[in-house]
Amino acid sequence: MSTPTDEQPLGRRERRKLETRAKLVAAARSLIAGQGVDAVRINEITDEADVGFGSFYNHFESKEAIVAAVVEAVASELGDAIDAATSDLDDAAEVMAVAHRTIIDRAAAEPTLGWLLVRLELSHDVVSTALGPYALRDLQRGIAAGRFHVDDQAATLIALGGALLGAVRAVLLGRVGDDPAITHAALALQLLGLPAGEAQEVARRPLPRG
Amino acid sequence: MSTPTDEQPLGRRERRKLETRAKLVAAARSLIAGQGVDAVRINEITDEADVGFGSFYNHFESKEAIVAAVVEAVASELGDAIDAATSDLDDAAEVMAVAHRTIIDRAAAEPTLGWLLVRLELSHDVVSTALGPYALRDLQRGIAAGRFHVDDQAATLIALGGALLGAVRAVLLGRVGDDPAITHAALALQLLGLPAGEAQEVARRPLPRG
Repeated sequence: MSTPTDEQPLGRRERRKLETRAKLVAAARSLIAGQGVDAVRINEITDEADVGFGSFYNHFESKEAIVAAVVEAVASELGDAIDAATSDLDDAAEVMAVAHRTIIDRAAAEPTLGWLLVRLELSHDVVSTALGPYALRDLQRGIAAGRFHVDDQAATLIALGGALLGAVRAVLLGRVGDDPAITHAALALQLLGLPAGEAQEVARRPLPRG
Repeated sequence: MSTPTDEQPLGRRERRKLETRAKLVAAARSLIAGQGVDAVRINEITDEADVGFGSFYNHFESKEAIVAAVVEAVASELGDAIDAATSDLDDAAEVMAVAHRTIIDRAAAEPTLGWLLVRLELSHDVVSTALGPYALRDLQRGIAAGRFHVDDQAATLIALGGALLGAVRAVLLGRVGDDPAITHAALALQLLGLPAGEAQEVARRPLPRG
């Protein structure tokens, strides 16, 4: 329980400041998803957020600073989603499958997020930034459990991330079959050395909170 | 043997026209590799090629037309390289491994080509355009031979292409171990359902013309 001195309710001014910052980040997110970082200008962000151009600099030093805030928001959003979806699972292979399914399902449900991943990868390595720590943890857990057969962890994460981005892009472009998340999860598990039949079985298990 | 009526030697004017076109394509290639398609302007291409701005339109209708010429050149260059490297091989798994090794080795040797692949993927699907037909042929050959275990061919090609681009990008950024081409080829074979030990063995075979 918080005491008044610990967590004073924000004054109106502070509240409005946070609201404006959130509007700017949401606007930047949407514009970057549509065009990529390079094409977006600060005045487009303030126009989209319906905020005066000058007030941008009350919140961010530069375009790069707001892009960093977008990357950070995407990273924590995806990380939280993966943790929520996998925390009750015991099988390391299933953890990896559910993590991949979570990302693809979210990209399908929210194309802005999918395009952010695709477009921010080239400029900001967003997949490594956002998912790298989770992927490494889950990879090492699977190796320790004898589920994965991995020679070079770094190269494996690179291939896994590239394959995932390819699948996200295919989902966004509608170039996929019936259940792209499950199909991709099975491929990811095969890449990690699971035999084909086992990869299919693990990938098709019902989602923990489905 | 050609007869004079079949293949008249080109006149000086035609020769110069082809030379200018080749200079423009080479300039576009280098600029796109550095900045991506969107950022490149026609006047930058003519400057880089040391050709007058107006003469661009004697060769190409638009920026899109010269980009298409670059994509086509990359596709036939990589296709020829794959065919040359794999034509003597009998094992379908080895064909796939050598094809992947060829692309990664070439991207390492010629970073402009590597960056072209990475940057043209988002705008022009260059990996599918350039490598898709080869990848599909080699995939189906491996399935027919019982080497690969593939449930969904389209999804498998998407994951393979994404993993390959991830590896090419890692090579360009120097984020790789000792022999990234072999390491990646083994991962690609695992993705296709080869057991880990077998994938390593096939990926490490000496290159046919090495």
